[in-house]
Amino acid sequence: HQRQVSLLSNQRSLTATTLDGTRITLMANIEFPQEAEHCIQRGSDGVGLYRTEFLYVGKSTDPTESDHFDAYMTVLRILGPEQPVTIRTLDLGADKFSNLPWAPPAEKNPFLGLRSVRLCLRNLTLFKTQMRAILRASAFGNVRILFPMVSTLLELRQCKMILSEVKEDLEEEGIAFQRNIPVGTMIEVPSAALIANNLAREVDFFSLGTNDLVQYTLAADRNNEHVASLNNPADPAVLRLLKMVIDSARNAKIQANVCGEMSGDPLYTQLLLGLGYRQLSVTPHNIPEIKKLIRSVTLSDAEQVAQDALQLETARDVTNYLREQMRKILPDQLEA
Amino acid sequence: HQRQVSLLSNQRSLTATTLDGTRITLMANIEFPQEAEHCIQRGSDGVGLYRTEFLYVGKSTDPTESDHFDAYMTVLRILGPEQPVTIRTLDLGADKFSNLPWAPPAEKNPFLGLRSVRLCLRNLTLFKTQMRAILRASAFGNVRILFPMVSTLLELRQCKMILSEVKEDLEEEGIAFQRNIPVGTMIEVPSAALIANNLAREVDFFSLGTNDLVQYTLAADRNNEHVASLNNPADPAVLRLLKMVIDSARNAKIQANVCGEMSGDPLYTQLLLGLGYRQLSVTPHNIPEIKKLIRSVTLSDAEQVAQDALQLETARDVTNYLREQMRKILPDQLEA
Ligand SMILES: [Mg+2]
Ligand SMILES: [Mg+2]
Repeated sequence: HQRQVSLLSNQRSLTATTLDGTRITLMANIEFPQEAEHCIQRGSDGVGLYRTEFLYVGKSTDPTESDHFDAYMTVLRILGPEQPVTIRTLDLGADKFSNLPWAPPAEKNPFLGLRSVRLCLRNLTLFKTQMRAILRASAFGNVRILFPMVSTLLELRQCKMILSEVKEDLEEEGIAFQRNIPVGTMIEVPSAALIANNLAREVDFFSLGTNDLVQYTLAADRNNEHVASLNNPADPAVLRLLKMVIDSARNAKIQANVCGEMSGDPLYTQLLLGLGYRQLSVTPHNIPEIKKLIRSVTLSDAEQVAQDALQLETARDVTNYLREQMRKILPDQLEA
Repeated sequence: HQRQVSLLSNQRSLTATTLDGTRITLMANIEFPQEAEHCIQRGSDGVGLYRTEFLYVGKSTDPTESDHFDAYMTVLRILGPEQPVTIRTLDLGADKFSNLPWAPPAEKNPFLGLRSVRLCLRNLTLFKTQMRAILRASAFGNVRILFPMVSTLLELRQCKMILSEVKEDLEEEGIAFQRNIPVGTMIEVPSAALIANNLAREVDFFSLGTNDLVQYTLAADRNNEHVASLNNPADPAVLRLLKMVIDSARNAKIQANVCGEMSGDPLYTQLLLGLGYRQLSVTPHNIPEIKKLIRSVTLSDAEQVAQDALQLETARDVTNYLREQMRKILPDQLEA
């Protein structure tokens, strides 16, 4: 505990910069507005993923535009006007359900069903209410909007078209908002990773949801213990997708942020930097540890690690190799 | 109906050869031993996929080695010693269940759960019984063994190791079998497609299960009407995977057979040939129609079609383009 506390206070004011001087953006994933305080305490570079399901889950009526707006403003007030706050539109369905009447019917495979942005595209009133609130909040800070579970270019275009309509409405009503609000798409369905070069031309940033990406790529439910050994971010197939996505992002000169559990696990920090990622988003709790790791590596070493890891044939080989590399940098990290 | 009958008798004795002289192997998918007759009637080049779930579904006891062997011999007797008969090991779970005690527990997302080869690798007695019967049958014909739902290289290696053990047992018992029985893996999980170059080095052939590959790649349950519009083999992401897989197969000089619904749909015939596939496996019913199409195209045209299709951005664009190309070849095909 003592060590944690000192790590925390030591790291807070330091930037997430590699030994050879590359500044990494280390953001926080949050689930509730109150967590914005933790972002400050832990020294994050803004919010990489602000989940908005809490506004719906366990409620008996839909949140109003004010409910949305107030929740967003709470975070903006704490983080100030400069730090990015990435608001993800509603990601309900699958393992997160709501009691609300428009919630999807029971499905045999909810993870492969009507969830997330698929649900929103069928409930435009709901979708537009959230978009209005996000746009209104964008007048008060560095707000970015993020669409989850996009599987095709058509879906992304639909989302963007609806956003344009909402912008027009606000304009007509004389309500302030950031016209050039950055628009991002989650990359968490294999199809999205595979067409990343096409998607990259139509968004400002990517956010990689590695939890879902891993489960779909390996066809292994992340909550099913019987297939847990298959559900592994170190799988060579996942590494190849991560490489494809960052290559597409860099070609299109857009940002790509890794925000699944993988980014909060120090085992993968070198790998992700080495593949080319310059933004990670993790739970506030993990920020000091990941920052310490970033500050202990050089990009040139990380690039070698990524190159080596991409040659390995099994998840086990990748894990063993990454563990060995981490031990070289921070011998005490593994026991922590 | 009259037209169907005449197409049938015209095509039966013809080979599936393109206008510019490339012989395509056009095989049949069967579910029951009795269907072997249809393969002959329809003029197939053997069985590309012999499903074996019928031996388990609706039964109260596990099939014995003799039950397996008899079912395989029925097909071999009808097809003779030359034609390939590809026997797929048990593919239970997901939407195909059995009453048997070792069947998997209820799962929240059975398509992402303990199904198919995952289940077999946990029930070695069951798996070995089936392998023994397949190996014994291999002494009497051109039998190939195919493992479904392989997601990692490790799983494939486990399957092959168990097969080696069963071969040793048979040898010790002095039972005849084909030592070099060709071993194949289904490519139907995105991870398998993504590591196809690694898998190709360790098998004799690939069999592409496009139904599952499409549903996992797009995270869209193939039996869920609410996401039916996403579940589309024409999706650009699917096309890219199909290209990766055939490139890996050709580099490793192994065969690759497309056996999902996609291969039985004339809309995709030119595309698949153009990508480089030389083997298709379809339900016996579809053989005459697909054969007619193969006999109406040149590979050089097909290659252009594939190249063009790979540039398109949405499933809708791909479908429209392929429809147009098919109309050029067989103007009456679309009304059939
Ligand atoms: Mg997700
Ligand atoms: Mg399948």
